[in-house]
Order: sequence, then C-alpha cells, then structure tokens
Amino acid sequence: MSSTDISHIHEFLHCQTPAAWVHWALENQALMLIDHANCEHAAGQSAMTAMKRYRNGIPGIANSGLTDRHGVNYSLLAKLSRLAREELRHFEQVVALMRKRGIDYPQIAASRYAGRLRDEVRPTEPSRLVDTLLVGAIIEARSCERFSALVPVLDEELSDFYASLLKSESRHFVDYLKLAEGVAGAAEVEDRLQTILAAEQVLVESSDTEFRFHSGVP
Amino acid sequence: MSSTDISHIHEFLHCQTPAAWVHWALENQALMLIDHANCEHAAGQSAMTAMKRYRNGIPGIANSGLTDRHGVNYSLLAKLSRLAREELRHFEQVVALMRKRGIDYPQIAASRYAGRLRDEVRPTEPSRLVDTLLVGAIIEARSCERFSALVPVLDEELSDFYASLLKSESRHFVDYLKLAEGVAGAAEVEDRLQTILAAEQVLVESSDTEFRFHSGVP
Repeated sequence: MSSTDISHIHEFLHCQTPAAWVHWALENQALMLIDHANCEHAAGQSAMTAMKRYRNGIPGIANSGLTDRHGVNYSLLAKLSRLAREELRHFEQVVALMRKRGIDYPQIAASRYAGRLRDEVRPTEPSRLVDTLLVGAIIEARSCERFSALVPVLDEELSDFYASLLKSESRHFVDYLKLAEGVAGAAEVEDRLQTILAAEQVLVESSDTEFRFHSGVP
Repeated sequence: MSSTDISHIHEFLHCQTPAAWVHWALENQALMLIDHANCEHAAGQSAMTAMKRYRNGIPGIANSGLTDRHGVNYSLLAKLSRLAREELRHFEQVVALMRKRGIDYPQIAASRYAGRLRDEVRPTEPSRLVDTLLVGAIIEARSCERFSALVPVLDEELSDFYASLLKSESRHFVDYLKLAEGVAGAAEVEDRLQTILAAEQVLVESSDTEFRFHSGVP
C-alpha cells in the first residue's frame, strides 16, 4: 500500500467516492481494467487535441505565442505533451496487465462522466481553454482519489500498480490546475472550479446504469 | 555528424531526396522546424487513431484479440503506443528548439504528402490496416532519409538533433514494417509496398507548391 498523501485531493473534491462504488468495482475488475485502458487512451487524445488547438497561440490572450517571454503557450505545449506521454505509458501498463490476466479487450461505451463534465465548458476562448484545463484537473483528481480507495482492497499486483499511478495522477492534477492559473485569474479559476466540482459531485453520488471507472453508484 | 548506417533505408525507398529539396530546406529552416513539429504531432495522433480502431481486435483476422497467444493485437497496441510516445518526445524537442531560436508557431497547411499516400490505402479490413502500417513505414523511412541528407549541411545544433532523430525514425520504420508483416503475408506486403513506394517517388520528385518537410521540389 502506498503512503502517498492525497489530503490535498480530498480537500479539492466536493465528495469522496461512495463505498458502494468500491464494492461495485471489486465485482467488476475486468471491466474496470478495460475501461481504465480506454480512459488512459482518451486522456492522451484529449491532451493532443488541446495541443493542436492551441499550438499557434491562445485566442483572446495577448502575447501568447510560442516565443512570448511569459511562455504560457510553451508551458501548455510542453506540459500537455508530457501528460499525453504518461497516459500512453499507463495505457501500455494496463493492457499488459489485462493480457497477463487473460482479460480480452471488448468494445465498451464510455461512461457519462467526461462527457457531462465537458458540457460545463464555456464555448468562447479563452474561457474554453480555462474550463477544459479545469475539467482535466478534476478528472485527474478523481482518478487519483479512486486509485487511493482501491489500493487497500485489491490484490497485491493491482494494488501496487494503482499505488504507482496515484503519484503521477496527483502530479497531473497539479499540472492542469497550474496551466489554468497561467491563463485565467485566481477568482475566475475558483468560480469555475466550484461550478464544475458541484456537477462532478452529482455524477459521483447519483446512480448510474453501468459500472465504469468514473461511474456513479449502482 | 552521425555515423548511423541507413543503407537499408536507401535500398527500401525508390529514390533519394533531390538536391533541389535540400537547397529549398536550407532557405526555409524556420518553416522546416514548424512543419516538423506538426509532423511529429500528426504521427503521434495517427498512431493513437490506429490504437483506438484496432484495440478490440483486427477485423478479418481470426484470433486477433488481446489475449490470443500469437499476440498480434498486443504487439500492435504496445508498439503503436511506444511510437506515439516517441513522436511526442520529438515534438517537445522541436518546439523547445523553435522557442530557443525565436521562431514563432504560425498555422501552416500540411503538405500533400501524407494525404496522397493515404489515398493508396485499400478501404476494407484487414487490407486497410496493412496499408496504413506500410504508409507509416514509408513516412518514417523518408523522414529518416531526409534527416540524413540534412545532417551534413545544417548548423551544429540542428545537425546533432537530426542525427539523433535519424536513429529512432529508422527504428520506427522497422517497427511499422514488422507490424504489417504480422498481419499480411510476405507477398502481399511486397506487392503493396511497390505500389505505394511508386506513388511516393512521384511526390518526392515532382514539383510542389510550397516547401514542407515532405514536399516535392520547387
């Protein structure tokens, strides 16, 4: 079991994962790994989509080109690219574990979670970028919190694996948050966070149709 | 200057890069770096798109699931993911060099090259996967060959950088080729390669409208 301190994640999120979700996960461990692999891939793709969208500068932000001395755009590209690489590395690790355990990789639908959070993203720039980064921070924080809830109850191999991921996901959470703070003021970040975190709490605590890594409760 | 032997790449491709392209590149070094960054990002995205398309098995190939003992699908996912990570790492290196040299990152259109090669991809599976992998192999081989042509004529910093990329791109070329050989027979691979390589030669030797990393000649 990991000794990683995630008290800052618990303070950040509006609620902890209900025990009912943890029980649901234990009954659906193959499904959990399949959905987890999909989530890592999707997280990598989201980071790469943002890299493409903002690589030529941030609309609505003056002097946000690559060579601007404040380096907002450079930080964004460098951090998102490193994030995407880490998500891919995790994807490889999950898929290797699945193969080792004889778990095949069927097609499954994504949970409602990320889509509903993205519904909160404001449509015009630079608000769109700020909210996209905050949604990224929240997804990483929740993933980290769920890994932490799973570490004490899974078998040793999965427990060790999720304990190792916990550390990088908590770093990703901070990365996304800092990137958002580089684009918007502290008051705007705080206001948007409270709105999106409130929506997130509903998704975590309400009942859901199917078990997924980011699903609600049965 | 690198001592990497790329004679296998020269034997594989139907033609070498014309000297006129190398002169064009020297006159357009900022544009070359910008397009190079775009190409690394696009190569990463292509690998990730293929990972998503084939992660649940390869249509038309029996026993191509993740847990099949031949591991075709597992190799595909693991190799494509590592490829994508390396492309992203190169993207970060190019962007860091651009920033260091005061080169901003404007929006530029992609060259005709990759799109025209993809026109050669047969539409039905598993032919589509075979051809997609062969197009990947050809793009990596050409990139490698162009890096090698540039290494002796660029300044020391760029020359060292391109010499370092040369090695990984030549590995990527072999990876893509081996993956194609894991899906199709040797005769089919050879036949398709000759068709796509002939199209590639035309794109390299014919005149092009604008300079790009994979453009034809002025």
